[in-house]
Amino acid sequence: MIDKKSYINKLVQLKAPSVNNASAYAPSNIALCKYWGKKNLELNLPTTPSLSISLRDRGSHAKLSLASQNLLSINGVNALSDSPSFKRTFDFVNLFTSEKLAVHSRNTIPTAAGLASSASYFAALVMALNKIFDWQAPISTLSCLARLGSGSACRSLQHGFVKWFNCDDPWQSYGELMDIQWEELRIGLLIFDAKEKAILSRQAMLHTQKTSPFYQTWCENSRSDFVLLHKAIEQKNFTQMGETAEYNALSLHAVMLAARPAIIYSQPTTLQAVSKVHELRSAGVEVYLTQDAGPNLKLLFLKKDLNAIQAAFAELEVINPFSTVNLIDNGVS
Amino acid sequence: MIDKKSYINKLVQLKAPSVNNASAYAPSNIALCKYWGKKNLELNLPTTPSLSISLRDRGSHAKLSLASQNLLSINGVNALSDSPSFKRTFDFVNLFTSEKLAVHSRNTIPTAAGLASSASYFAALVMALNKIFDWQAPISTLSCLARLGSGSACRSLQHGFVKWFNCDDPWQSYGELMDIQWEELRIGLLIFDAKEKAILSRQAMLHTQKTSPFYQTWCENSRSDFVLLHKAIEQKNFTQMGETAEYNALSLHAVMLAARPAIIYSQPTTLQAVSKVHELRSAGVEVYLTQDAGPNLKLLFLKKDLNAIQAAFAELEVINPFSTVNLIDNGVS
Repeated sequence: MIDKKSYINKLVQLKAPSVNNASAYAPSNIALCKYWGKKNLELNLPTTPSLSISLRDRGSHAKLSLASQNLLSINGVNALSDSPSFKRTFDFVNLFTSEKLAVHSRNTIPTAAGLASSASYFAALVMALNKIFDWQAPISTLSCLARLGSGSACRSLQHGFVKWFNCDDPWQSYGELMDIQWEELRIGLLIFDAKEKAILSRQAMLHTQKTSPFYQTWCENSRSDFVLLHKAIEQKNFTQMGETAEYNALSLHAVMLAARPAIIYSQPTTLQAVSKVHELRSAGVEVYLTQDAGPNLKLLFLKKDLNAIQAAFAELEVINPFSTVNLIDNGVS
Repeated sequence: MIDKKSYINKLVQLKAPSVNNASAYAPSNIALCKYWGKKNLELNLPTTPSLSISLRDRGSHAKLSLASQNLLSINGVNALSDSPSFKRTFDFVNLFTSEKLAVHSRNTIPTAAGLASSASYFAALVMALNKIFDWQAPISTLSCLARLGSGSACRSLQHGFVKWFNCDDPWQSYGELMDIQWEELRIGLLIFDAKEKAILSRQAMLHTQKTSPFYQTWCENSRSDFVLLHKAIEQKNFTQMGETAEYNALSLHAVMLAARPAIIYSQPTTLQAVSKVHELRSAGVEVYLTQDAGPNLKLLFLKKDLNAIQAAFAELEVINPFSTVNLIDNGVS
């Protein structure tokens, strides 16, 4: 298969910057059908299709400016030039240019805590690169480029439900927006631990793929989950969507629990909240959960149950993914 | 396949009681390679071979006496005649006799909390039945009979490592003692919750077998785990034994987490202790865990690490499964 550099060269015309600076915002996204495992490491082609919902105003702002030396600040704090985030950023940026750049990023969601901060970060970065180099690339191309930075970033260029279906053809493997508005849908964030996770998802993914005896079966099931979820969303069948998303997530954590050694992202507070969600559901409040590479939970529910769910979870942050209120890009501090 | 009644009739000669009362003690057992799933529901033939270590003085005392009506007391409390334990006991006892019996049982381990109390109970019951009816049956036969009451009971008739290998031939499907003494081995019980579990293991087993997409793969892996464990025990290779037992247990809980709906036996305290075990191991203290159908953990370690492990877990109950101190059967109060 084609290498990363040649791939990029076919997607955009690399050239000198058009402007001195540019900024962009990209929302974080929560996968309802998870991306977990790679078919191709060079181009981040996934093992299975995935499907996500974007988190509107929770995401990443990225501002790029031409500079005399590479610089990265995250939430106002300069990253050391030998830090993993600095290295990861400029390994990526250097695929596109030999110019030095200052990257100022600000996340409105905790960094590296299983809240898809690297997804929104690389999506925002690519959108800002598109502006500074005036590529005028369509979203599908930018999505392919963002995918190279972090697989799930390819789903973070748009608001709403985004599917990443193609696992084989690098030219078609990008996030596609579903033409669905679901005004009643709410996402609840239960953030128990906003610290960086002990095992980054990139590593956890490879470890799972390599060592968990259940991985292959999970992949087969996840392909069916994708089809079910896609249909449930098209039909706005909340029960089907919630159940499928929850099973997809729990079975992924099961796959990780069976890895050797086991990967356990849940913390005691996670388990408490899982029980509470199941109790609420038994009591007739329709709420489902999903969990990524961290201890935090994301809840899925409908507007009508907001009060009941807020009463149960005082710390809940509620997101309306289809809000019509304008997003204000207040730039990077 | 043969039905339960005919099966029993071929194993023992059913007849009138020889004495008025009899009592017996059987140890509880902790499976290092789990029994989870049935190939045959009538005769409790397992899907996979299992292997356990008996818990010496933690188990069940059963005292039987001829009576004018059936009676069951558990730890000194009479069970109602429409309670599940009464029904389960006399459904079993009635397979052997039409006499009325008073059954007084006493568990030295919490009842129905994933601590194999039904295993030791049915084993003790069968041993007491053997005495009262003077069957003079060998242990292999009593093990087959105990299996009908509760699968894992067939491993509770002896002290030490017991394997239950044969999954197909009802006449050969019994617990067999391994000829191994391992004086240094210790079992630690971490009992977080001694309440009866919400989902009994019999039900959880069937639910898992029926709905978890990972069940078949777990069975295949568990067969390999059995072979590895058997060899590790013969060679007294503690690392191999501990690692295999821990993987076998965690992957079983993974299978349950992927069931639909999910079965989660862990509680917040369980997860805390799992982390602590993993931290201890990272710090060089060789301790492994196993978990059954409940939130409690069982630790495996060697005598030399007793102090370090007791320092980490104040509530630990330590069992020396190969102690040469005589067990005192102090009967049933």
